[in-house]
Amino acid sequence: MLVVMQQGATDEQIQNVIDRMVEFGFDVHRSTGVVHTVLGGVGGRAEIDLGVFDVMDGVKEARRIASPYKLASRAFRPGGTVVGPIGGAQVVVMAGPASVESPDQIEQCAEIVSKAGARVLRGNASRALRDAADRHGLLVISEVPDLTQIAPVSELADILHVAARNMQNFALLAELGRQQKPIVLERGLAATIEDLLLAAERILAGGNYNVVLCERGIRTFETYTAATMDISAIPIVKKLSHLPIIADPSHATGRRDKVAAMARAAVAAGADGLIIEVHPDPDHAASEGALSIRPDQFAELMGQLRLIASAVGRTL
Amino acid sequence: MLVVMQQGATDEQIQNVIDRMVEFGFDVHRSTGVVHTVLGGVGGRAEIDLGVFDVMDGVKEARRIASPYKLASRAFRPGGTVVGPIGGAQVVVMAGPASVESPDQIEQCAEIVSKAGARVLRGNASRALRDAADRHGLLVISEVPDLTQIAPVSELADILHVAARNMQNFALLAELGRQQKPIVLERGLAATIEDLLLAAERILAGGNYNVVLCERGIRTFETYTAATMDISAIPIVKKLSHLPIIADPSHATGRRDKVAAMARAAVAAGADGLIIEVHPDPDHAASEGALSIRPDQFAELMGQLRLIASAVGRTL
Amino acid sequence: MLVVMQQGATDEQIQNVIDRMVEFGFDVHRSTGVVHTVLGGVGGRAEIDLGVFDVMDGVKEARRIASPYKLASRAFRPGGTVVGPIGGAQVVVMAGPASVESPDQIEQCAEIVSKAGARVLRGNASRALRDAADRHGLLVISEVPDLTQIAPVSELADILHVAARNMQNFALLAELGRQQKPIVLERGLAATIEDLLLAAERILAGGNYNVVLCERGIRTFETYTAATMDISAIPIVKKLSHLPIIADPSHATGRRDKVAAMARAAVAAGADGLIIEVHPDPDHAASEGALSIRPDQFAELMGQLRLIASAVGRTL
Amino acid sequence: MLVVMQQGATDEQIQNVIDRMVEFGFDVHRSTGVVHTVLGGVGGRAEIDLGVFDVMDGVKEARRIASPYKLASRAFRPGGTVVGPIGGAQVVVMAGPASVESPDQIEQCAEIVSKAGARVLRGNASRALRDAADRHGLLVISEVPDLTQIAPVSELADILHVAARNMQNFALLAELGRQQKPIVLERGLAATIEDLLLAAERILAGGNYNVVLCERGIRTFETYTAATMDISAIPIVKKLSHLPIIADPSHATGRRDKVAAMARAAVAAGADGLIIEVHPDPDHAASEGALSIRPDQFAELMGQLRLIASAVGRTL
Repeated sequence: MLVVMQQGATDEQIQNVIDRMVEFGFDVHRSTGVVHTVLGGVGGRAEIDLGVFDVMDGVKEARRIASPYKLASRAFRPGGTVVGPIGGAQVVVMAGPASVESPDQIEQCAEIVSKAGARVLRGNASRALRDAADRHGLLVISEVPDLTQIAPVSELADILHVAARNMQNFALLAELGRQQKPIVLERGLAATIEDLLLAAERILAGGNYNVVLCERGIRTFETYTAATMDISAIPIVKKLSHLPIIADPSHATGRRDKVAAMARAAVAAGADGLIIEVHPDPDHAASEGALSIRPDQFAELMGQLRLIASAVGRTL
Repeated sequence: MLVVMQQGATDEQIQNVIDRMVEFGFDVHRSTGVVHTVLGGVGGRAEIDLGVFDVMDGVKEARRIASPYKLASRAFRPGGTVVGPIGGAQVVVMAGPASVESPDQIEQCAEIVSKAGARVLRGNASRALRDAADRHGLLVISEVPDLTQIAPVSELADILHVAARNMQNFALLAELGRQQKPIVLERGLAATIEDLLLAAERILAGGNYNVVLCERGIRTFETYTAATMDISAIPIVKKLSHLPIIADPSHATGRRDKVAAMARAAVAAGADGLIIEVHPDPDHAASEGALSIRPDQFAELMGQLRLIASAVGRTL
Repeated sequence: MLVVMQQGATDEQIQNVIDRMVEFGFDVHRSTGVVHTVLGGVGGRAEIDLGVFDVMDGVKEARRIASPYKLASRAFRPGGTVVGPIGGAQVVVMAGPASVESPDQIEQCAEIVSKAGARVLRGNASRALRDAADRHGLLVISEVPDLTQIAPVSELADILHVAARNMQNFALLAELGRQQKPIVLERGLAATIEDLLLAAERILAGGNYNVVLCERGIRTFETYTAATMDISAIPIVKKLSHLPIIADPSHATGRRDKVAAMARAAVAAGADGLIIEVHPDPDHAASEGALSIRPDQFAELMGQLRLIASAVGRTL
Repeated sequence: MLVVMQQGATDEQIQNVIDRMVEFGFDVHRSTGVVHTVLGGVGGRAEIDLGVFDVMDGVKEARRIASPYKLASRAFRPGGTVVGPIGGAQVVVMAGPASVESPDQIEQCAEIVSKAGARVLRGNASRALRDAADRHGLLVISEVPDLTQIAPVSELADILHVAARNMQNFALLAELGRQQKPIVLERGLAATIEDLLLAAERILAGGNYNVVLCERGIRTFETYTAATMDISAIPIVKKLSHLPIIADPSHATGRRDKVAAMARAAVAAGADGLIIEVHPDPDHAASEGALSIRPDQFAELMGQLRLIASAVGRTL
């Protein structure tokens, strides 16, 4: 850690800061510049709250040097991590309806998405979903809305999905760290990229390294879309972390007519996969019809994505 | 609801929208302007997803007229609601440490805050907290971090506190709707004022009308503070809702040296109360020391708040 | 326009609003719903400040139905507008250095960018830039930092560039409306898509229809990049307006290592062009070296963009 | 400056960074930690673009230690600066209409605001405004919309007002640095507090130290108000800078019914002054009627402010 003292900080103030750093287990190196004295701390406790230093007299600012996440950092596994089918050369598309409405509807969905080239079927966990996926050689991804649903969802799904709303549900993250199944962890609406990596760290810390991150939009002043999809998070996560990252253009935009453009953008920027809402008849969907695309739109999109994937050295 | 058609929308497009509105139970009034046709819908289902209309051909935009919340709206109780001690003429101050560290520490806290004029002791629910509060004639507010904690916390606390992180934990809100105890519901970092009122609506809908809202900052591009405290939310909530609103300057700013200024601002803007972290020795607090104020700072602040409360026609 | 009255608004309040609407030249249609009365206004002055109604007693909200921009709207020219080389089937790449440092440097730049397939050379207006562009068959785009520079820049450049900082410099926009040259108008850091279209409207209103919009990032809470590039603005502008839209991944990200990913994303999302900083030796550039890419990076990117352009039915 | 190297950075990468730092005139101190090597630079050029280091191989991040502003920093004048009447014990209220509509209207305004205790009359520069102010012993503040207006406005006004839109109009700031008159500089909608201080620095650098900062709201996802007034900026600026800071609740909220609450909050938080739109008949104002308050509202507000000012040890 580093503490930059204010211009004119007194020796006593500096000494107080040094003493506190030592209390937290740091070796302290002092550099005296023309304007500022800088105190560098080596070793020490990782989980320390730097705000404690920020409010000390004479302190200009305190800051961490090491990333606050370790297991999620690129340095931990420079070659990257492959989680199930995700993170290799292939861009993995997961698609399906918001709600499983009937065995017929989900069978139709499974057929549509597998024919178009998706590898994973999305939907709320149910026997009908599992069966339809199996018939079409698809994996299953389903949301785990809270702690109590981990066991039942795990029986039916291959990949567990943590919604943006739950990104900082620490009890849930801790329990997911004790599972083996791959987890897709969505970025919260108010979460920085660092917040997202810190949330992933909580799962990794439990021993489950099968974590895939998911960009699905942040809240900004622009209200035309449901959220502003931060496409730049994709290459940034690739640099900072070894974990794969996918994107959810359906919920990020909230509008069917913007899904294809944003799905293409995500793959062009290097996403390892996509999760897309597709419905045989979105105008009559039980939920989220406004952001679900039609089968023909999905098929056309998959054709475009195949070309874009190859432009960035990948397959689909 | 209203649907504004695009300039040049065809009769067939307009008819399709009318048909869909009727499907959802609306009576439709059509107004044809020089540029736009507007379709007004009366009656119909309240919980309808307007996005369904937004993506129909020829639609410029669809929008709700009625507030999406009813029970939380000012119209529901024009005279306002008093929740326990909160919402009347007195500005209610809740104060205490982030963590109960020992019986001694919490006894010290209770003495400090009650002497300075606070009415409620904050801290994580424990027997020591309850006893200290009782000795000093204080009420107790404690956080309910998840569903399983409602019962044990309710045994010790008078007011249940829902943290910003849980504002959209719908299972938790539903269960709190079945309780009798007052709830303090914090605004999430990415929540609009409307989002906050919609979250309150979920508690009210269960039958528990004892809800107090709490402004504790929203996430913006300004990074000097932990969050940007939206003081204007205070008079806005007063206009839109009958529920009391308090403010949490400690977590909003994240910095001890900014707490007093923001506490004063909140009361000047009309807040019904404050929740403030106070610690006998913040530099050695087990947690949140950076944002906790010292006893002398708290006492000085209370003196200022008393004058400001009277400037806006209230007591403290 | 529409005014939605509060639940329980009195007849007198409603009449006051009607009277005010009539004062502004509107014909008023009154619809009385179960909960709200809605007043629809047809005709009337376009430039009216709706806030006047928002603060009247008994008013819930006032809103515009027609877009506040007319000339910039898609309805004005449903087929779209081609501005010089921009807006047709070809994705137009503009590239070059932040600063013209010497005749040699700009000659080198012109050669690099024209060989790689760019059509326009960017740089601050100078004779050396003009000459280098001419030698390589490139057009020239240069910034117009203020009113006084329109004439001198116009002598050397083919396209005039308005920086984000100047998006609401109304005197500048008004004067550019009187020019014939194509204008590239950047979105301001705090500008909504509607704000951008309103700024364009000011140029169009002066008679200059040769306007190209440019997405270059908005300010959000994410600080890893200089700004958050709102890629979704590209398909949204395509729907709302007939004007072409390009993207500036160099300034949006502020980081050389993120430029290529965001350039690819923009083209995949449907951008009509790109403006990119390229420098023969960015590590020793006079300015903006951190966000300028090297010639080899630019050539590789152009190869990828060619494939992506064809995936969305365009050329490069 | 400091450069933190990535974990695993090679000796060659470290040496390259050191060489570049030396090129920029820095003395370099190298500290090797368990995980990271940190390079501290002392001396060197102040205006250096740190992004140049951010994109070098092996660099985790580069950062400035010294504040990027010097003349505007608190350390430059620890005792604070008084600008004309602003910055002393008295909270200075500036009030008046958005537009001078007639000699009668401005005379009325001057009487209203001076009677209620304001010290400065606001309005667009005109002879009528000047005369009305003189008759009532008020100073005059008027906006300088662009460079060409400095001279004519200076003839009529005592204080020059730079609107938020112009906060980064560098040509204008430079010229204002050559003036003697006090300048009120508004924070831009997308400007951090540091951006605001850097803009002030440009005026100070020209030799004009009579600068007053003004908080008038930042753009956030909350759309109920025109902008989100960042009240915490007031105590923060007080800590970081010696310059006075005032607040503009009229434009920040954009709504007449929220002006009083935010004016009170600003004074409670320590503002040195306020600038408020007041109009004898806001419902018929030529402009900005929606955010102008009535004479009776202004008088009531001034009474409350007087009490709040005294609560924080000031007068009004």
